[in-house]
Amino acid sequence: MRAVDLILKKKNGEPMTTQEINCLVNGFVNNEVPDYQMAAWMMAVCFQGMDSAETGALTEAMIRSGAQVDLSALPGVKVDKHSTGGVGDTTTLIVAPLVAACGGTVAKMSGRGLGHTGGTLDKLESVPGVNIEIPIERFFEIVKETGLCVMGQTENLVPADKRMYALRDVTGTVSSIPLIASSVMSKKIAAGADAIVLDVKMGTGAFMQTLPEARELARTMVEIGRHVGRRTVAIITDMNQPLGMAVGNGLEVREAIELLSGKIPAGDPLYEVSLLLASQMLLLAGLAADETEAHAKLSCALESGAGLNKLRAMLAALGGDVRCIEEPDLLCTVREKIPVTLGRSGYISAMRAEQIGVAAQLLGAGRATKADRIDPAVGLVMHKRQGMYVAGDEPVATLYMNDPAYAEEAAALLRSALTLSKETPGHAPMVYDVIS
Amino acid sequence: MRAVDLILKKKNGEPMTTQEINCLVNGFVNNEVPDYQMAAWMMAVCFQGMDSAETGALTEAMIRSGAQVDLSALPGVKVDKHSTGGVGDTTTLIVAPLVAACGGTVAKMSGRGLGHTGGTLDKLESVPGVNIEIPIERFFEIVKETGLCVMGQTENLVPADKRMYALRDVTGTVSSIPLIASSVMSKKIAAGADAIVLDVKMGTGAFMQTLPEARELARTMVEIGRHVGRRTVAIITDMNQPLGMAVGNGLEVREAIELLSGKIPAGDPLYEVSLLLASQMLLLAGLAADETEAHAKLSCALESGAGLNKLRAMLAALGGDVRCIEEPDLLCTVREKIPVTLGRSGYISAMRAEQIGVAAQLLGAGRATKADRIDPAVGLVMHKRQGMYVAGDEPVATLYMNDPAYAEEAAALLRSALTLSKETPGHAPMVYDVIS
Repeated sequence: MRAVDLILKKKNGEPMTTQEINCLVNGFVNNEVPDYQMAAWMMAVCFQGMDSAETGALTEAMIRSGAQVDLSALPGVKVDKHSTGGVGDTTTLIVAPLVAACGGTVAKMSGRGLGHTGGTLDKLESVPGVNIEIPIERFFEIVKETGLCVMGQTENLVPADKRMYALRDVTGTVSSIPLIASSVMSKKIAAGADAIVLDVKMGTGAFMQTLPEARELARTMVEIGRHVGRRTVAIITDMNQPLGMAVGNGLEVREAIELLSGKIPAGDPLYEVSLLLASQMLLLAGLAADETEAHAKLSCALESGAGLNKLRAMLAALGGDVRCIEEPDLLCTVREKIPVTLGRSGYISAMRAEQIGVAAQLLGAGRATKADRIDPAVGLVMHKRQGMYVAGDEPVATLYMNDPAYAEEAAALLRSALTLSKETPGHAPMVYDVIS
Repeated sequence: MRAVDLILKKKNGEPMTTQEINCLVNGFVNNEVPDYQMAAWMMAVCFQGMDSAETGALTEAMIRSGAQVDLSALPGVKVDKHSTGGVGDTTTLIVAPLVAACGGTVAKMSGRGLGHTGGTLDKLESVPGVNIEIPIERFFEIVKETGLCVMGQTENLVPADKRMYALRDVTGTVSSIPLIASSVMSKKIAAGADAIVLDVKMGTGAFMQTLPEARELARTMVEIGRHVGRRTVAIITDMNQPLGMAVGNGLEVREAIELLSGKIPAGDPLYEVSLLLASQMLLLAGLAADETEAHAKLSCALESGAGLNKLRAMLAALGGDVRCIEEPDLLCTVREKIPVTLGRSGYISAMRAEQIGVAAQLLGAGRATKADRIDPAVGLVMHKRQGMYVAGDEPVATLYMNDPAYAEEAAALLRSALTLSKETPGHAPMVYDVIS
């Protein structure tokens, strides 16, 4: 089987067999299929797509390129969650403790932020002392002790994805739904969970900018889960504004602690999306019979402080200084806090959430390249949400920073990210769809 | 300018500027843009195409990657011809001598055959003693002495094309009209001719299988010629059967000699297409005022033997044994000649010309890979053309061979290349269009 014939098949829109996809992925991993052939094939996939059998076969071939994590030594149904990436999106640090507090087992591998989106590993590391580069044995111990743990990906998890992703990044082939879906799902499946809840972000701060695209990605990932026999549910949530008010690593952990401390009311988007994700996880884990029961259990875990205790236990097990649980301001002690005003009044009709993420990144909260260092304490806190009225002299946000070099640029970016209207605008929904 | 942004631009169907195309091609030639990025970009071109400004810019960037041949020391308008490749298509050896006999200057670089199509260099080398690997100074001398010469491409002619073509070949990106057009035209323009006549083959033995495709390729190449200020005309000719009766190197030279000796009558496809090409060359060179005058001059060159004398002079200058001019059978002395019969009777309604080319290749007349050796004397001679009646016991062709290993396979391939009908079929036209 010649790689060029497999490329031509995809280019001509003919369906590829499982054997052909295996041949291509194995050849790529074994350096028999060079980068230029994989790049050409992936560009052809961008134009011709892949059907669900092809996408499933691709995902399985990618999984087999490395070692899979076996979580069977851990008790109960292991349930994972994954977000496709957003701004102010710190649900993992809320959802994992709540699910663990309700008796779930969350043994989760997370990633780092890149560009305008954050990553759970960076957020955890904003807690002084936390070390997420732990041996897998220690990871298992922590999950057994506390019911939850988050760590970095093991070295040999889906090497095909690492190489394909690096190649996609430099060949303009990132934005293909089957390639995105197989990349996400291969890692989730190889990481060993029995059930997976996916949070597909849609809007100005997400990779999927429209609802049809987000639905297609969600459906594709749920189908892959079905293909390999892992219970999978996807929810499509709004990313037309930051999900939480905080954007920045320590700031987002502080917000998660505040939420788990009962300081953020129901109705808040971060609260609602977190509880929806957590209740889907309880349902998949068989820990609740229906959404009402799931919600009741989660509310109880929240109000009793059991969720907060789970977060404290995990942070302590990872070596973190848990004083931040009582004093979360410790996580965002900065030299300067600058309020940002707009100088014009009106209703916030729209936000370009990506720009808000980039503003926080400019202040040092994110990376432009993988080598960049993050300042854990900096970022920004929004004071207004989409749909609210803002007076010209009223701060819409506060910048948290240690190095004022990019302050003016970040403030300008933030200002230009907001569109004002004279009339009361409609409110963006928080959740668009649940796909299972 | 990042290569990935240039790939994305093409992928998204946005037009690229000349500067952007230069950046990509120069980067590729300088090894700053790796093969995988060029492969992804070329695959995106396969789907999105290129407009005429982009295709012109690509061709110019490719030309600048190497040294251009300067033909200005030679007299008159230098006129070149190029065929997109076919079976039994030996027009260069007829057209170049006739045009030279009419006072034209034909200083031409040619290629070798690959796959089912032949190449002029291989045909010339079937004449004992001929050496086409001559220094460029000797090439100029021969053109000055005789009015014509054919040689291999100089080493540094369009290196960008050599590398892009090798990459296209293994990444499924051969069949893109702007990439084909820029590949052909960059070489023709760099080879220095003032005017170019293109023979775009269309049909079962050609790369272009339909008339709309062939027209688009022809128009694209003519537009490139206009873009760089070289007079260019394209004719679209039929390749639904071999153009001549002979398929094989020495056999095709013999047929060219026979034609120049007046032994092939007007009305024959090889005769008609050759005279049309030659008359277009005379018109572009300003050696005839209209087609009638061009045809009259060419007929005279043919009947007087002046054309044959030009071929003899060039072969002699290249070191060839010119006894073949009087005794062309010397070029195809083989151990065995086997007639092929069909065992069924009817009119030949269609021929798969590519299969006929492959049959000759199997006998040793062509290469499957660039490293394969050619036997100059072998191949096949068709006895029937499309539209003719053939009786079951009547030979449709004769195989010329020295090694009988593939005889049966070649005969079977030839048989299966012919479709018979009971009714008289229509005749395929010889020429479909002239585009200028």
